[in-house]
Amino acid sequence: MNLLNGRKTARLLEENLKVRVEELKEKYGRVPKLVVVIVGNNPASLSYVRSKEKASRRVGINGETIRLDEHTTQAELLEVVYRLNCDLEVDGFIVQLPLPKHIDENIILNAIDSKKDVDGLSLLNAGKLMNRQKGLVPATPKGIMMLLEHYNVEFRGKYAVVVGRSNIVGCPMAKLLTNADATVTIAHRYTTDLAYFTKQADILVVATGVVNLITKEMVKKGAIVVDVGINRVNGKIVGDVDFENVKEVASMITPVPGGVGPMTISALIHNVVEAFLESHEKTV
Amino acid sequence: MNLLNGRKTARLLEENLKVRVEELKEKYGRVPKLVVVIVGNNPASLSYVRSKEKASRRVGINGETIRLDEHTTQAELLEVVYRLNCDLEVDGFIVQLPLPKHIDENIILNAIDSKKDVDGLSLLNAGKLMNRQKGLVPATPKGIMMLLEHYNVEFRGKYAVVVGRSNIVGCPMAKLLTNADATVTIAHRYTTDLAYFTKQADILVVATGVVNLITKEMVKKGAIVVDVGINRVNGKIVGDVDFENVKEVASMITPVPGGVGPMTISALIHNVVEAFLESHEKTV
Repeated sequence: MNLLNGRKTARLLEENLKVRVEELKEKYGRVPKLVVVIVGNNPASLSYVRSKEKASRRVGINGETIRLDEHTTQAELLEVVYRLNCDLEVDGFIVQLPLPKHIDENIILNAIDSKKDVDGLSLLNAGKLMNRQKGLVPATPKGIMMLLEHYNVEFRGKYAVVVGRSNIVGCPMAKLLTNADATVTIAHRYTTDLAYFTKQADILVVATGVVNLITKEMVKKGAIVVDVGINRVNGKIVGDVDFENVKEVASMITPVPGGVGPMTISALIHNVVEAFLESHEKTV
Repeated sequence: MNLLNGRKTARLLEENLKVRVEELKEKYGRVPKLVVVIVGNNPASLSYVRSKEKASRRVGINGETIRLDEHTTQAELLEVVYRLNCDLEVDGFIVQLPLPKHIDENIILNAIDSKKDVDGLSLLNAGKLMNRQKGLVPATPKGIMMLLEHYNVEFRGKYAVVVGRSNIVGCPMAKLLTNADATVTIAHRYTTDLAYFTKQADILVVATGVVNLITKEMVKKGAIVVDVGINRVNGKIVGDVDFENVKEVASMITPVPGGVGPMTISALIHNVVEAFLESHEKTV
């Protein structure tokens, strides 16, 4: 079994990106800038935001965090979004999810300028992914593709099963794998006999938030297993895959933590640099 | 075996829609209007356009066709699109595909106001489908869902295989089936052992343009088979499924012609009425 080491891969890719960012600074007189907006005090969100700040520093881009009170109204948050849309110094920004219940996530996400939408969740970027046009791709599935590509995983003609159909992970993941010429199944809570599908998969991506959903018996010998789950159990972080047992049958597997998480952060920073390049080096 | 009779179902749905259109006329003083733009003289396209004109008449909406010379430039076509975007009397319009080689389809499709994009091919509508928001859905997959729903096909927990991954049919079809709680596989030209997948499917949708790609041996007993193919062979129109033999094993199957084709036209007209309603009855 080979570990799909997300932490190591992320650091390696960030080293390359850092060199790129230095070149951009020389060429354009400034580095790309990412702004993270967080509303409220969700501890998991705060921890993600800190990881993003650290990654920005590692790569040498300009990272800023805007912390808003949990009672911030939707109108106030929209105003922040509009201001960031217009700020020429900001290349990309994200509004950390989940948002408090009184704010409509779709309204906020749809208000983000697609050119700065480095989480890839706006309708225009989702449409570009759907219609196979170049755009900003959601960070988690993008990071997973970067990780698998780094380990020279072949996609064409392989059978991939994605468990989970969220807008943020499952659906864009399935689309990226389809675009990479894999045959792809999306399974979810209504799938009859989940194991029937998972144990056929050459590549298995699991993004459900259900602890230990995927057991050894559900995985084909030699499969490549990607665990997107980040679940807190008795103060420990575990994924959706029973890692200790599944690693006995998988040919490659991501650990949790240290697998998909760091790659997600890295993909986000890559998106910021892409957004910077798109606005600075557009040929039109 | 039951025939999934698209022609009959389309006529039935159109009868209901006709009543709706009469009510709208009474309420708003005019009927919904569809404009079809066609560039050049592709015989298949001209035949589709005629079908759309006829369906508009049957339902009682206002149908107009703009015929442009095949040497029309991209800029000239864009001007037509912009004019239609602004025309308050036009509720929906489509630019018939394929376009002549010198015109970039994506540029034209992306220029169409998403509120009038009754073919559902603009980035915004593709993004809405991707992110599970209400929008205008491409006519062929929408028509197929309407057909299957009319025959009371259950989706939840069923296994659906979609063969073909185009922006117009395969990918939106897979997304609609996923949203309807089916477990969905997208197969395509790079799928290893296509039959392995197709013969497991409870619902099989084929949209490849390859004559007789799906034979009897590739279909599970009792499967529901939807054939999107429209291929001309020796002056006869045939699908992608070997109908005569597959009908022996399928529980339901669409004929070609008379299956998906009429439903596509009907779904387009439904989209026009939806676009009219959206602009006239919006609560905001």
